[in-house]
Amino acid sequence: MAEVKNEGELVVAIPLYHRFTALDGVGPYELLHAVPGVTVLFVSAQAGEAVTADLGMLHLLSTASFQDLPRPDIIVVPGGPGTHGALQDPVFMDWLKKAHETSSYTTSVCSGSLALAAAGLLQGLEATSHWSCYEDLAKLGAVPTDKRVVQQGKIITSAGVSSGIDMALHLIALLKGEEMAKMVQLLVEYDPQPPYDAGSPKKAGEALMAKTQELAKRFGNALPPPK
Amino acid sequence: MAEVKNEGELVVAIPLYHRFTALDGVGPYELLHAVPGVTVLFVSAQAGEAVTADLGMLHLLSTASFQDLPRPDIIVVPGGPGTHGALQDPVFMDWLKKAHETSSYTTSVCSGSLALAAAGLLQGLEATSHWSCYEDLAKLGAVPTDKRVVQQGKIITSAGVSSGIDMALHLIALLKGEEMAKMVQLLVEYDPQPPYDAGSPKKAGEALMAKTQELAKRFGNALPPPK
Repeated sequence: MAEVKNEGELVVAIPLYHRFTALDGVGPYELLHAVPGVTVLFVSAQAGEAVTADLGMLHLLSTASFQDLPRPDIIVVPGGPGTHGALQDPVFMDWLKKAHETSSYTTSVCSGSLALAAAGLLQGLEATSHWSCYEDLAKLGAVPTDKRVVQQGKIITSAGVSSGIDMALHLIALLKGEEMAKMVQLLVEYDPQPPYDAGSPKKAGEALMAKTQELAKRFGNALPPPK
Repeated sequence: MAEVKNEGELVVAIPLYHRFTALDGVGPYELLHAVPGVTVLFVSAQAGEAVTADLGMLHLLSTASFQDLPRPDIIVVPGGPGTHGALQDPVFMDWLKKAHETSSYTTSVCSGSLALAAAGLLQGLEATSHWSCYEDLAKLGAVPTDKRVVQQGKIITSAGVSSGIDMALHLIALLKGEEMAKMVQLLVEYDPQPPYDAGSPKKAGEALMAKTQELAKRFGNALPPPK
């Protein structure tokens, strides 16, 4: 396992791309940035640009360019309806490959694991993703599993959207110990009490799964290009 | 209970203010915007301005002004280290009071309930908030409880930061039925598996609570004013 390079001063890079899923990035951001000595930067082609999430209703500003931040300590790649587009972006993909060489941990949430796989980082490794992406993940050389958080050496992948919160706790424990992870859990009051138990394909059952696959198609629809 | 005004077309307003907590707003956004016919708008004094969250590392663009959106169907007020400042902002507070008159549901996450209370909406009502805010909530006339999600008529308050995800599922069930709530839960794979069980003061115990209160002080530190 790679050692953390500068004890007490860690830079987390969350790359943004057109139609990333906001919660994939903002979940881990919220928990990680609460740790003393951690700086979270949102990275894109141009520092300061607005990057549009999901279905076009949310816009997050990037706070660094890929060029500005070649060697973050931690990488958290979010997923989203735009992941397949992001895989075609050589600037993002080159950055990811290079940044991974020196990162302490390289992580993903949701379909973000497809970017890790496309960068060649998951060859033959167990990895997870959003349930809709297992086949694509396998095509890119990884061994898909429906576990919520999967660590393989310094690479950690997590399941769909909300799983980034669980992954962040795991990561904080690795970086700063279990007590810090528990403090952050308490700080963000992460004592989940979903009113239903339908959060995974296994639990939801076939009928709900089929309807949800229909619902998910909305996210595949084209979105007008960014303003 | 107020009826939803336009079946199949609902506008959710998430007001933003300097140093709101990003996950408080982005959690509910992510779930609500996935429901067909729901539009989520991030509201502030000026449409298109960047609003800085938490400790200054995240900036979200607002997508409507308070003036643009006087009568949203749903209001979701996030909390954050800036809540006490927001209570002093007459433009925000006047908007909240007026918008509540015609809303179908008025909701809050974390210390956002202090804004509802300061607007006079929680007088004598049971309500919740981040665990650090129970005393302030009582001073503003509400009856604090440590429940995760509390509904009183058309007002729903929820606990700290991550609780907005549970609240959003509750809200989607009210708006569109339980099946839609379960579909969205599956879509965002909300099958929480925190590695620790330290997400509430009761579960964390006194020693961890004391350390976390120390950690939370960082959020009280001054932040340079917005650029």
